[in-house]
Amino acid sequence: MRKVEVCFSPELIQLHELEDKIVVVVDIFRATSTMVAAVANGVKEILPFPDLESCREMQQKGFLIGGERNGLTAPGFEMGNSPVAYLKGEHAGRSLAMTTTNGTQAIEKSKQASQILIGAFANLQATVSYIQSQTEDVLIHCAGWKGHFNLEDSIYAGALAKALEATHLAEDDGAIAMKALFETVGHDLKGFLSQASHAKRLQNHGIEHDIDFCLSYDLYDLVVKVNAEGFLVKV
Amino acid sequence: MRKVEVCFSPELIQLHELEDKIVVVVDIFRATSTMVAAVANGVKEILPFPDLESCREMQQKGFLIGGERNGLTAPGFEMGNSPVAYLKGEHAGRSLAMTTTNGTQAIEKSKQASQILIGAFANLQATVSYIQSQTEDVLIHCAGWKGHFNLEDSIYAGALAKALEATHLAEDDGAIAMKALFETVGHDLKGFLSQASHAKRLQNHGIEHDIDFCLSYDLYDLVVKVNAEGFLVKV
Repeated sequence: MRKVEVCFSPELIQLHELEDKIVVVVDIFRATSTMVAAVANGVKEILPFPDLESCREMQQKGFLIGGERNGLTAPGFEMGNSPVAYLKGEHAGRSLAMTTTNGTQAIEKSKQASQILIGAFANLQATVSYIQSQTEDVLIHCAGWKGHFNLEDSIYAGALAKALEATHLAEDDGAIAMKALFETVGHDLKGFLSQASHAKRLQNHGIEHDIDFCLSYDLYDLVVKVNAEGFLVKV
Repeated sequence: MRKVEVCFSPELIQLHELEDKIVVVVDIFRATSTMVAAVANGVKEILPFPDLESCREMQQKGFLIGGERNGLTAPGFEMGNSPVAYLKGEHAGRSLAMTTTNGTQAIEKSKQASQILIGAFANLQATVSYIQSQTEDVLIHCAGWKGHFNLEDSIYAGALAKALEATHLAEDDGAIAMKALFETVGHDLKGFLSQASHAKRLQNHGIEHDIDFCLSYDLYDLVVKVNAEGFLVKV
């Protein structure tokens, strides 16, 4: 049986072996949910950046630029970090440069993996099917919040570990714990996650629609992967 | 209402404010369970050491020395890290110097706290009562396993957060997650934790009695605290 393990924070990723693994990066509120929404709605490719400045420079090269810090659109950026901004397909065909507080850093720190996938509830089942068609073990890399464990990324890890249970053994204590927690609270994701510290932060920003989107299962039959040039594209 | 938060690994403790908090250090398998067992059975005081060598030097000063690495008694040490070795009271009145793979490091990294307590299932309710008599917020510092999240320390964190719910709000996502998980699996701690990676490691060492002891609730009406000189003593 293949294996699935969970890392709860980019600050702990150095404890894990990434080589020969599929790493699924997840930042439910909102980076990876937004990435999946953008690609599903026609954005051609996404190039992630750890910092605002190098992201901003991509505007001159014709990129749409999306940037967020602490939940707010960064000054001078066209797009923030809202998945619903992509749903009308207005940005179809564009290349997007993107930087966020937690999610893009987690992608950067996953570079040694054999494959990097972008995870969201919106494409959970498609990601499961893709992983099951591959041979590698899986590591779920939760972006967390400024290094801290967070509830929404961890529950996604539990959902993915649960959905993979026919083929992948929960290998470490993180996967075991989150699979058990998801089995208990997965039927009321929104109710449970309304307690989460980051959901509260987002509620203060008045983006209820974003939260609803980020917690919706299987909106898209789509897998998003980091290609050899570092672009996030449809598989 | 006061607050309770959880740190899952000494590798993440720098993300937390410790000042003005009660930090409860927990290493269920087996350091803090052993410390509580030792003090409950008459050991006068315990001085924790991060390394084997400085611990070993304490033997010349009349200390009983206990040392473990990777679950095994360290060479030349009188005691390993087994709580049941203290249950007959044979070491009553002695001072113990002790070093373990994870637990003693977590104590060392908690030094900025206003108070440091030593947590175990064996003295859970006594620790709850003591905390409720104090004014500070609480941080539960899980020793983990070589930096990784582990199931047994995290479930203890959930048990403590649950037992404190009348007085302390689950402040961060770690406390919320583990409280919810404990509510689900707390009635069968041993069954659930038999999946845990470290429990499996310990089973390989043939120490079933230790595991039973470490997962038993409220054997002692005793609070263990680090005093101003760095010794672990009965409150």
